[in-house]
Amino acid sequence: MGRVWDGLISDRDKEVYEKAGFGRTSGFGKRPGIVIIDVQYRTVGTVRAPILQAMEEFKTACGEAGWDAVDAIQKLLAVARAKAVPVFYPYVSHKESYDAGRTGTKIPSLMTVSDRGYDFVEEVAPHAGDTLIPKKHPSAFFGTPMVSYLIDQDVDTLLICGCTTSGCVRATAMDAFAYNFHVAVVEECVYDRGLVSHAVNLFDIQSKYADVVSLERAIAYLSGLADPGKGA
Amino acid sequence: MGRVWDGLISDRDKEVYEKAGFGRTSGFGKRPGIVIIDVQYRTVGTVRAPILQAMEEFKTACGEAGWDAVDAIQKLLAVARAKAVPVFYPYVSHKESYDAGRTGTKIPSLMTVSDRGYDFVEEVAPHAGDTLIPKKHPSAFFGTPMVSYLIDQDVDTLLICGCTTSGCVRATAMDAFAYNFHVAVVEECVYDRGLVSHAVNLFDIQSKYADVVSLERAIAYLSGLADPGKGA
Amino acid sequence: MGRVWDGLISDRDKEVYEKAGFGRTSGFGKRPGIVIIDVQYRTVGTVRAPILQAMEEFKTACGEAGWDAVDAIQKLLAVARAKAVPVFYPYVSHKESYDAGRTGTKIPSLMTVSDRGYDFVEEVAPHAGDTLIPKKHPSAFFGTPMVSYLIDQDVDTLLICGCTTSGCVRATAMDAFAYNFHVAVVEECVYDRGLVSHAVNLFDIQSKYADVVSLERAIAYLSGLADPGKGA
Amino acid sequence: MGRVWDGLISDRDKEVYEKAGFGRTSGFGKRPGIVIIDVQYRTVGTVRAPILQAMEEFKTACGEAGWDAVDAIQKLLAVARAKAVPVFYPYVSHKESYDAGRTGTKIPSLMTVSDRGYDFVEEVAPHAGDTLIPKKHPSAFFGTPMVSYLIDQDVDTLLICGCTTSGCVRATAMDAFAYNFHVAVVEECVYDRGLVSHAVNLFDIQSKYADVVSLERAIAYLSGLADPGKGA
Repeated sequence: MGRVWDGLISDRDKEVYEKAGFGRTSGFGKRPGIVIIDVQYRTVGTVRAPILQAMEEFKTACGEAGWDAVDAIQKLLAVARAKAVPVFYPYVSHKESYDAGRTGTKIPSLMTVSDRGYDFVEEVAPHAGDTLIPKKHPSAFFGTPMVSYLIDQDVDTLLICGCTTSGCVRATAMDAFAYNFHVAVVEECVYDRGLVSHAVNLFDIQSKYADVVSLERAIAYLSGLADPGKGA
Repeated sequence: MGRVWDGLISDRDKEVYEKAGFGRTSGFGKRPGIVIIDVQYRTVGTVRAPILQAMEEFKTACGEAGWDAVDAIQKLLAVARAKAVPVFYPYVSHKESYDAGRTGTKIPSLMTVSDRGYDFVEEVAPHAGDTLIPKKHPSAFFGTPMVSYLIDQDVDTLLICGCTTSGCVRATAMDAFAYNFHVAVVEECVYDRGLVSHAVNLFDIQSKYADVVSLERAIAYLSGLADPGKGA
Repeated sequence: MGRVWDGLISDRDKEVYEKAGFGRTSGFGKRPGIVIIDVQYRTVGTVRAPILQAMEEFKTACGEAGWDAVDAIQKLLAVARAKAVPVFYPYVSHKESYDAGRTGTKIPSLMTVSDRGYDFVEEVAPHAGDTLIPKKHPSAFFGTPMVSYLIDQDVDTLLICGCTTSGCVRATAMDAFAYNFHVAVVEECVYDRGLVSHAVNLFDIQSKYADVVSLERAIAYLSGLADPGKGA
Repeated sequence: MGRVWDGLISDRDKEVYEKAGFGRTSGFGKRPGIVIIDVQYRTVGTVRAPILQAMEEFKTACGEAGWDAVDAIQKLLAVARAKAVPVFYPYVSHKESYDAGRTGTKIPSLMTVSDRGYDFVEEVAPHAGDTLIPKKHPSAFFGTPMVSYLIDQDVDTLLICGCTTSGCVRATAMDAFAYNFHVAVVEECVYDRGLVSHAVNLFDIQSKYADVVSLERAIAYLSGLADPGKGA
């Protein structure tokens, strides 16, 4: 089966990675959690539109790629909620002046998003009981109690959705890998503003940190879990 | 000036990043430290050789790209040491069985490196007084006292060297960015086994987390510091 | 000079600590920040009253000891603000169901504080520009971007105020010590519900982690700083 | 049943803590791990002797209190190993000059311990397969991959042993509490150089962070686990 990065990674690089033994399967554990990162209007726009048009509304919008992912996340969430799998929403909250730091010098446009941009996209917004994790930095783990929530809710496997692939998704996948969680990035459920960065970061993630799995495979995994209230 | 990623990042992606206002200059601070990540024989090989040949010795070797970086790091270190700039060596130490975790399932070849592979490359090996930071995970900060050492030595700016660009270099740059250090990745001083991942990760880093600077610019910055013993 | 713990620590223990060489002076650095922990109505009560009476309003209130500390913190803040020293407010925010974890099992009364209890005590409440750090756990550093803020604002010394001495103050002092900040706990500015725990934790902190200094000494240190806008 | 802190904590303080609803039972989880902190000769001495005599050998020795705990830890370990419960050894390793930081200014005697002092006490030393966690700071979690190991080995409950009660034991218990692990400090298995700090820190821990349990109770818990190889 072809992969999204096939046309970008050279044959030489593929040979090297293959020979080095990278990219084995990490595998699913037994107690999954869904992690939906930054699916707020600032990252997709309030209407489905091509990226350059969506960026007229929010400079940080990813446009159609984001909305396609929202569709996929809806499907994943429907199965997850039927199985009572816990859902975690790391998100960026309104920025204060003291939040600028290196973010403010490197990407000043991140400091001036309107309040509407921080709203969760309605189609995949949190339900009561879901865990909200405001964050100031790319990784859902950096400067947050994310790992405490995961331990409390007895999660051993993360299914990661959201954006951007080359930003917060990768940072979160990498930290989750380092914490020794099983990590799967659900390919149709993540998005980025850059097509090349999207594909190459998925290659990096698949090679080193996590399994990049299809929505179909993620749904099959969740469907195989015991029904809620019926024990493990 | 051309950048190493120019041929890989599409015009569409460049337009989007430009319009989003990414990639501004983060800038140098006043109290630099040099960070040399994983420059051990396992990542270059004991002799200068093309990568596929070097991998016969160590599956994780990057070959000539690594040795070219060693040459560049030597030049940077000469200036840094003359200015008494502190030098930090995050490195991977011998793996124990309990270190396997997700690393062992995802990249089993990382678990069976010979002792010789863990030796520092002589040309750029630590001097007495340099700070050694054994690490178990990609980022120099994850599960290490790295930030405590940086605070103790009053560092506000990191010049990052070593490998791999798409692995520990990126992870370290991203965490250092999140800690609000000024971060520069010295382009000639970092290396990777994959040419595409190397270039695209430098693009990601330059766009979002740190300044990807030339060796010449890094040396100019260090040369402009006060001489040791002459105060700030 | 007598110390608050003198009557509690036995002569035998004092001899042992003295002989072991504990309790040397850590000293102040050059770039202080004030840290005011959890000075919210839930920890003092809305009116100055003896502790058992104050606990009728909030089970977590410390009563008069808290209000005495508020007076002292006001004095410290007046000097700090005149010198443009940055002020940090780690605080507990409204608890969600998913915040229960071990806190909810060990101290269930912490989960049901009214909204009014979370308001900052007006006399020492944050000003515009101060850094607010919502936290879920005792230490101001645990699961927060505290260290990122301190690095960004170039702080090397923490003057710690607030409550409780045996809880969040100690946890924060210990983590700040481990990060290699210079740490001083300002004795008149910290408070606890337990007199014994208050005193013995100050002994532990002074012996191992930080300097327990008088308000007078802290003010003298701040007064000796350069005036704002006049350089270092 | 009397508690070790009864004679130290005043009736007024006990009333306040009781009224505030502190000190409920946290409880055991299902997948325990044993954590043995700093049981090295530097903390007990190479021979069983009264503390002031033991301190002639190592300034940091706790003497008989430490050796009594070693006896208790042996009993706990025998049961734990029969049940194949994982055992973790956070420990202090030889100090380098760059490790001084605030430790070196506050407690300089910690910087000059002889190599013999760092050896594990033979009676309770690690077995092959146990996890070793070198640390530079009090908490077993600070600047270490401790939490990654616990997640990888699927531990949800920590039984804490070692020293000192008012130092590394408390710091570790507090962090483990914040990570939402179930935490029990085994009373006979922890020790300190100060009798007052030992007792009052156990009171603090029992009131806020963890269950302070008897060796008998800890052994009963472990004995009730399924035998290895027979599933959960």
